[in-house]
Amino acid sequence: MGGERAFEYRARVESTSTLENPMSTDLDAFFRPSSVAVVGASSDPAKVGYALLRNLLFGAIHGASDRNAGFPGPVYAVNRKGQDILGQPTFSSLSEIDDPVDLVVVAIPPRFIADLIDEAGAMGVRHMIVISAGFAELGDEGKRLQEALVDRARTWGMRLIGPNCLGVIRPESGLNASFAESAPLPGSIGLLSQSGALITGVISYAHRELFGLSAAVSLGSKADVEDEDILRWYAADDATTAVALYVEAFTQPMAFYEAARELAAVKPVVAIKGGSTAEGAKAASSHTGSLAGSMAAYSAAFAQAGVLQARNTSQFIGWSRALAMQPTTVGDRVAIVTNAGGPGVLSADAAGEFGIRLATLSDETKARLDEVLPSVWSHNNPVDVIGDATPDRYGAALDILGSAPEVDGIVVIMTVQAMTDPMATADAIAKAHENPAWTKPLCSSFIGLMGTEAGAALDARGVPDFNVPEDAVSAMSALIQRGRWLAREEPDPHPLERHPPPDLERARQLVQDARAVGQRNLDLARATEVMKCAGLRYNRSATASGEEEAVRAADEIGYPIVVKLISPDVVHKSDVGGVVLDIVDGAGVREACARIRERVAEHDPEARITGFTIEEQVSGTEVIIGMSRDPDFGPLMMVGMGGIFVEVYEDVGFRLAPMTRRDALDAIDEIRAQPLLDGARGRPVLDRGELAEVVLRVCDLVQAVPEIEELDLNPLVITPSGLVAIDARVVLTA
Amino acid sequence: MGGERAFEYRARVESTSTLENPMSTDLDAFFRPSSVAVVGASSDPAKVGYALLRNLLFGAIHGASDRNAGFPGPVYAVNRKGQDILGQPTFSSLSEIDDPVDLVVVAIPPRFIADLIDEAGAMGVRHMIVISAGFAELGDEGKRLQEALVDRARTWGMRLIGPNCLGVIRPESGLNASFAESAPLPGSIGLLSQSGALITGVISYAHRELFGLSAAVSLGSKADVEDEDILRWYAADDATTAVALYVEAFTQPMAFYEAARELAAVKPVVAIKGGSTAEGAKAASSHTGSLAGSMAAYSAAFAQAGVLQARNTSQFIGWSRALAMQPTTVGDRVAIVTNAGGPGVLSADAAGEFGIRLATLSDETKARLDEVLPSVWSHNNPVDVIGDATPDRYGAALDILGSAPEVDGIVVIMTVQAMTDPMATADAIAKAHENPAWTKPLCSSFIGLMGTEAGAALDARGVPDFNVPEDAVSAMSALIQRGRWLAREEPDPHPLERHPPPDLERARQLVQDARAVGQRNLDLARATEVMKCAGLRYNRSATASGEEEAVRAADEIGYPIVVKLISPDVVHKSDVGGVVLDIVDGAGVREACARIRERVAEHDPEARITGFTIEEQVSGTEVIIGMSRDPDFGPLMMVGMGGIFVEVYEDVGFRLAPMTRRDALDAIDEIRAQPLLDGARGRPVLDRGELAEVVLRVCDLVQAVPEIEELDLNPLVITPSGLVAIDARVVLTA
Repeated sequence: MGGERAFEYRARVESTSTLENPMSTDLDAFFRPSSVAVVGASSDPAKVGYALLRNLLFGAIHGASDRNAGFPGPVYAVNRKGQDILGQPTFSSLSEIDDPVDLVVVAIPPRFIADLIDEAGAMGVRHMIVISAGFAELGDEGKRLQEALVDRARTWGMRLIGPNCLGVIRPESGLNASFAESAPLPGSIGLLSQSGALITGVISYAHRELFGLSAAVSLGSKADVEDEDILRWYAADDATTAVALYVEAFTQPMAFYEAARELAAVKPVVAIKGGSTAEGAKAASSHTGSLAGSMAAYSAAFAQAGVLQARNTSQFIGWSRALAMQPTTVGDRVAIVTNAGGPGVLSADAAGEFGIRLATLSDETKARLDEVLPSVWSHNNPVDVIGDATPDRYGAALDILGSAPEVDGIVVIMTVQAMTDPMATADAIAKAHENPAWTKPLCSSFIGLMGTEAGAALDARGVPDFNVPEDAVSAMSALIQRGRWLAREEPDPHPLERHPPPDLERARQLVQDARAVGQRNLDLARATEVMKCAGLRYNRSATASGEEEAVRAADEIGYPIVVKLISPDVVHKSDVGGVVLDIVDGAGVREACARIRERVAEHDPEARITGFTIEEQVSGTEVIIGMSRDPDFGPLMMVGMGGIFVEVYEDVGFRLAPMTRRDALDAIDEIRAQPLLDGARGRPVLDRGELAEVVLRVCDLVQAVPEIEELDLNPLVITPSGLVAIDARVVLTA
Repeated sequence: MGGERAFEYRARVESTSTLENPMSTDLDAFFRPSSVAVVGASSDPAKVGYALLRNLLFGAIHGASDRNAGFPGPVYAVNRKGQDILGQPTFSSLSEIDDPVDLVVVAIPPRFIADLIDEAGAMGVRHMIVISAGFAELGDEGKRLQEALVDRARTWGMRLIGPNCLGVIRPESGLNASFAESAPLPGSIGLLSQSGALITGVISYAHRELFGLSAAVSLGSKADVEDEDILRWYAADDATTAVALYVEAFTQPMAFYEAARELAAVKPVVAIKGGSTAEGAKAASSHTGSLAGSMAAYSAAFAQAGVLQARNTSQFIGWSRALAMQPTTVGDRVAIVTNAGGPGVLSADAAGEFGIRLATLSDETKARLDEVLPSVWSHNNPVDVIGDATPDRYGAALDILGSAPEVDGIVVIMTVQAMTDPMATADAIAKAHENPAWTKPLCSSFIGLMGTEAGAALDARGVPDFNVPEDAVSAMSALIQRGRWLAREEPDPHPLERHPPPDLERARQLVQDARAVGQRNLDLARATEVMKCAGLRYNRSATASGEEEAVRAADEIGYPIVVKLISPDVVHKSDVGGVVLDIVDGAGVREACARIRERVAEHDPEARITGFTIEEQVSGTEVIIGMSRDPDFGPLMMVGMGGIFVEVYEDVGFRLAPMTRRDALDAIDEIRAQPLLDGARGRPVLDRGELAEVVLRVCDLVQAVPEIEELDLNPLVITPSGLVAIDARVVLTA
């Protein structure tokens, strides 16, 4: 890093100094300190204390020894032995420094740190980054040590980042308070990671793609400063236009969720969750209970907060770059401009894969393109500007598509062919993009040119460039997803005329009654009653203690009917043959009761049979509403396709409670079997508004009655007159 | 490219010259010619004729003017004006060249090429690459011109590549007979692409990742030489260890399929299909009929031929590199070695995503790792060698895991941390890999280091390195997929005792009878009869012309029964309410017939009702077997989950006819709802062998009776006594 860059840094730091920024928070000194001290500075290049000092002095470890490239304010080195390090005089203790110290970075053995906090606190230090490991990650003793750290810090009003972290990097302030091997360029992506190593990976990647970061924060064991604190800081940080977040687990999931939702309302957030598959979760060792449940909860939290969940590192970095640089769009009509036929087709394939559409070009647009493209151009989208495309030709095509009203976003593809001039083409693309009239999102793929001058030129001028065309299309899909999130509207309530009014007080009473008689798995009658009190419409039904009473009840309800087992000992009735369908007369009822007795005796001779439920048989497409209490996030609502297919295809959406009507509709939209809900094969059509409202009623119930631990309405049947519940499973907390 | 490289080329070409290679075919001169002439050589750098000559002389267009880096044999330039080009004397016509010409590369206007073929043919030239465009892609006249070219070439026994192509590159022969902007390094991936531009993209990519190609062939309009010809050549080429194939469409799909299957039996093949989504297919404009059908057919062809189908460019290139360099494995127990926790977790997530497992380390392996790793290592897989891992530590961990019997393959991850030495780490990894005892597949991800010295060092020493960890895991999954393909075994036939013996002669006769009476959609009785003749077991059933006959038939079969409409005018019976289930007595039969009459009259008053089918009602998990005739590949067999879910979840596998028992089982394995087939919720378990056998019987039928255009057995019910067909839809060709 040369002096020019350092000068630039310095100028930027001054223009955004802590004191002048009205949005500054109490975390500012972690990013824009007036001075920094390294406690545990070392002269041994193999030690973290050496790397920290060197990074603060010179910006990065390798290839730099220019103080102008480092932190522009005072940097103090503290080392007990007191020898000079990297040409810098050292202090044998922190308190020897006479000038004010704003931020302390610590790399000394754990047992000395609590005292250091007192020493620093007494000097007025209010911000400390503890790099040292050896705390909570080592078990109970380490946990106690960590708690002691936090207690001491709190008495001084001091904020702690770490322990066991990489540190903090703020390129624009010239601050590299980390032991990363190199520093990123200043940029607009705010990176927050539970894994310090992932930050170093992103920095290496950034050097190839030549994009920058507004900051990188490694929180390590999160003793004090949490994800939500940094998310709030990023929300207010002018340099940050998008936030990229790697997490494995949160200390306070709901606090994170609230902060993420606030941040996502003003800036795009991309998250990648380590441990999102069973193999990964095992690796993260961060799950204790139901793995699947917890993963669903995380995805629900991200979706509901408006956080885009990336599925892999490429998406994580690619989406963040696009969202940091480019505007979003509600429309999904994308134009592809390419000098390469095959890659154009693959880009169109990717559009299909990511659920976005290729724009249909208007005759006017085609006529305008005819004027600037050779006659053999594709006359269609992808717009093939032909292998010998000049920079001017690219520029002219972009100008036309940039102003075409039928195009919402543009992906531009280039392969290096015999006559291609990559740098001049990059320049032509950037110029079209810099046109003040340009408003659309634009991503590019100069195929195979990652980290070259031409690719870098695009990124430097605000066009995110990708090594393969599918990644550019993927980035465009993120811009569309974000645009749609911002355009979401809360719909009007649905009248739900056919459903009974909710009476949650009575529902609570019914649950209390069940507890009083020692019922944890509510019997069907009680469960049904609870759901009716939640405001759900049921099919007609009755209970009977024996065969003859069952026949009378069935005659009254009318056929066809269903007979179901009542047993306090059986949770999944259908597993033991406790449900008989399609009964059309009294003889059938008798036979069904007998059959159920027989099967139960076979499966579980101990199980008591206390009676039978007789139900009006309704049939149609079946949906499910479910709830389980996630250990991290609380009530996790599920809605999707019912029957046995729920287990096999997992065609459901999840959301956290509380939720909005829009959240419920979003969850319903995630169901893949939309054609069935739309009435395929003459089935009744689902009224989405009605289902959303019913989901909200169930959500209200489980919030009002926290004793309900699990709940399944499976199935709810879509009938011509609306949704009818015909079963319920309600399990109370122990 | 320096002289040293050219020398190396020359040495290699000599050692594998055409004459000495016993596996040489008639295409050899395209890759290893003794001399080359460029017809249409140009002094204008903007022309293809300039690029061609320059590439032949100097290896690549840019940054090279060293004849030693070019084609080692004689290169002749032909230009009508006869001026010197690139310091090379030119001939005003091909026939002026006195010395023998082995390969001619052509870049002159289309109308002159037919005569050129005669001129060349008379001189003994038997190999020509036609770069020029302006043939079939321009419509009917172009097509005629192209056919004329082929006719002329055939009279001389000459083989043609192109027209409208990029050309052929054979790095090892020093041959760059293309107008690509740069040449790849010699390597072991054989690239074959319908898109020349995709080749240029792969070459750019290869320069960053520093891998090489054994050859790159662009076939363009495929007037003469087809994909299958090149695949056969690659099968015999010693330098090629894996083949990468980009296609949009084939001229002769079944010929391709056969050649691909032969090639995949001896070398791994990775294909990417342009136009694999509806958006992409529109872009490729290569589909006329049913898009979905055709895409399914391509995927079936790839799967059945043993070709790995990549879903995007990253996979296409990544899988090809791994398969070209690394051994395959049948086992899927992968160990991850990493100095970075977060990326280790993400790699484990990717393993879950790609359906491969993390190895469970044995106590012995852990004890051995304890000896070489710091005490805080993860003691688990991923093996976290800790952020300060030295090259030696990486090497030691790899040595141990390389010999651990519980580990089938290894993915090694590195991020650049403060103390990391990437080059020395690459060297340590390569050394472990070069140990003669090493037999396992190994892929690496030096995160963000694509195209750097360290990443290149790994590739150069045979370890494919990837920029992001998920791509390394993806590559490992390809090695496992390939290993499993090679280990496939044909199972023993299933006895099918409960199914009737096939009588295909009678099936043929029944179809003839139907045609004779003008039936195209076979009525259910006939369709059922045909399927019984194919050797399928049916539920008991009878036909009745009216209500009373229906009641008698039902009484004889026994209840519950199903009543179905018989009408020559209705294809989808259930759409018009033509199926009534759950009938338990004679009154129900009468009512059902009446209801059907009513509904049909409502839906389609014109439809004739010729009677009713009365069927024994069997219930259970429903599967489907279907067949449609793909315009490219012929009979396309489908097997999967039946009922209405087949349409919504498309949970089916496809294969082409003819197929093996193993093919049928593979298709069944592609079904996602395996738990249902395994008897979830007390359902009868599917005997996969029985279903495979039934699929083969249906496949035999549609091959024996080509008049059957479409066929659906939906559903086939899985009962405790095996599969029972209860419906059939058979449609004949027009």
